[in-house]
Amino acid sequence: MELKTPYLLFLGDVPDALAAKTALGIVDWRRDWCVGQWRLEGCAADAGLPDMDAAAGARAGARTMVVGAVNAGGVLPDHWVASIVAALEAGMDVATGLHQKLSDIPEIKAAAEAHGGQLLDVRHSTERFATGKGAKRPGRRLLTVGTDCSVGKKYTVLALESGMRDAGFDADFKATGQTGVFISGRGVAIDAVVADFISGAAEWLTPAADPNHWDLVEGQGSLFHPSFAGVSLGLLHGSQPDAFVVCHEPTRTKMRGVQHPLPSIREVIDLTVRCGSLTNPEIRCVGIAVNTAALGEAEARAMLDEMAGEHGLPATDPVRFGVAPIVEEIKRSFPTA
Amino acid sequence: MELKTPYLLFLGDVPDALAAKTALGIVDWRRDWCVGQWRLEGCAADAGLPDMDAAAGARAGARTMVVGAVNAGGVLPDHWVASIVAALEAGMDVATGLHQKLSDIPEIKAAAEAHGGQLLDVRHSTERFATGKGAKRPGRRLLTVGTDCSVGKKYTVLALESGMRDAGFDADFKATGQTGVFISGRGVAIDAVVADFISGAAEWLTPAADPNHWDLVEGQGSLFHPSFAGVSLGLLHGSQPDAFVVCHEPTRTKMRGVQHPLPSIREVIDLTVRCGSLTNPEIRCVGIAVNTAALGEAEARAMLDEMAGEHGLPATDPVRFGVAPIVEEIKRSFPTA
Repeated sequence: MELKTPYLLFLGDVPDALAAKTALGIVDWRRDWCVGQWRLEGCAADAGLPDMDAAAGARAGARTMVVGAVNAGGVLPDHWVASIVAALEAGMDVATGLHQKLSDIPEIKAAAEAHGGQLLDVRHSTERFATGKGAKRPGRRLLTVGTDCSVGKKYTVLALESGMRDAGFDADFKATGQTGVFISGRGVAIDAVVADFISGAAEWLTPAADPNHWDLVEGQGSLFHPSFAGVSLGLLHGSQPDAFVVCHEPTRTKMRGVQHPLPSIREVIDLTVRCGSLTNPEIRCVGIAVNTAALGEAEARAMLDEMAGEHGLPATDPVRFGVAPIVEEIKRSFPTA
Repeated sequence: MELKTPYLLFLGDVPDALAAKTALGIVDWRRDWCVGQWRLEGCAADAGLPDMDAAAGARAGARTMVVGAVNAGGVLPDHWVASIVAALEAGMDVATGLHQKLSDIPEIKAAAEAHGGQLLDVRHSTERFATGKGAKRPGRRLLTVGTDCSVGKKYTVLALESGMRDAGFDADFKATGQTGVFISGRGVAIDAVVADFISGAAEWLTPAADPNHWDLVEGQGSLFHPSFAGVSLGLLHGSQPDAFVVCHEPTRTKMRGVQHPLPSIREVIDLTVRCGSLTNPEIRCVGIAVNTAALGEAEARAMLDEMAGEHGLPATDPVRFGVAPIVEEIKRSFPTA
């Protein structure tokens, strides 16, 4: 799936910033792709962009309107339909990450056909994948893994893209979730792929490349999460990482949506190496990324120092302290060929 | 998905028995559900049933015509469409396990609507699953796992259903693949579920039950298969087995469809226990099922004795020597509450 940039971000009339987190994530990482935001009356979110409607967005050069907000339930509210039709009438494509397909809504389908706009349902891949082959491909790959869902795997890999490029690496972010796809303009929502093709989709996403090229793959779920571990394992096998970073949120006591405690970082490293070695016997951990937002600075630094010592690996908070120690570790571990 | 029995098995004009293995599997395990077979001119497969066409099948009481054959590519040959239409006209439902949907073929869709017949695409579940929760449910569960795909996981679990029922257990086969669904009349083709819902579908398939009831779950793939391990892990987490049996084919040198060698039985036991303990800390291996067809009887018995000694577990060939030693082990390990 490839999205045309730049974007107009549609925020609807969501009641808080959390409901617009897709739009906020796009602005965090791709501010220069966003010409503006379109907010309906009553919208309580603000992505900090110029306000404009569809016609103004099109005049400002937007080629895709991204629905960067969700209401409860993940369905499209009826009163957003007119805005989507207006975007199509203005000549834009429209992209969403909702479970509901845009083309299932007759007015939207008709407007897309009448104006030649594409409807991009990021959660419904139209690509037909092969099953994974597991053969080693040239090129380097890094995957973020986690002690849970929503522990900073996307943020960490985007920070690494930026940090590795600054350090002279040829490195590309590879999106596996809907917000990631909007941020990179392409990718696969891997959790929406048919189960037989998880590793095959990951292979398609990270094809053979130059020996010094790095694909930086957004991880999903956790090998220890009882809802999503199958996705995590297929993504690990298919992306065959040379290097991985463990992401962790130290204040969480239970995994998201279930009653299970979080695994230790050591358990995550061990199981990732054990399973990952099936498709890449050289797999190794290159760092630990911790969300320390709940801690004071001294406390955060002490925790990171302790983790670094315990595991013999760089440990950092990518948001607070940057990813330089992990980039250094990658440089040391993988000399340019 | 629930199929109405009895069945008329449609074999088309396939060139060999392998192409009709779905039909042959149904006859092996549910001979009394099959009123007859319908073979077109040139068919080289024979399920050993009375030959009859759709009209005769309906008169004999068949309520579903099962397309029990595939041609290369898994698509429906054009010249089979008339037979499917005839089955609908005769008042039957029609079920297939093809990737292609029956309702995508206009003549078939029209005939189904005209005659009120159901089109059952076993590989396209219409059930909407929740994500897995991982909470322990009452009732016992057994899962077959493997050193590879196609090593007898379905055969073993069906043989266990028969052997455990004979020994007085309350035990039900739970199908997770298309042939299994035809054999049990219900189930989920778990490899066709959207990736986010693998463990959730397995939880739906094996709900809370009487403490002495056994769900015997057909395994899929292998935790060590680079194409399908995600499916295997989600199925393991969702079915939360108390007991598992490792299935193995000793003459195979590479896993099906890939270049990877097979893991050892020890590796499969260890990783299954490690991952399975996430949703059932009491998980244990209760036996090894080996396909010894390529060996002489003395050689087969020697191999099984050696495996049994090495792992301290019963080892048998379910086809050749039956499953009694595994049923005994289950009886010993899980006393009736």
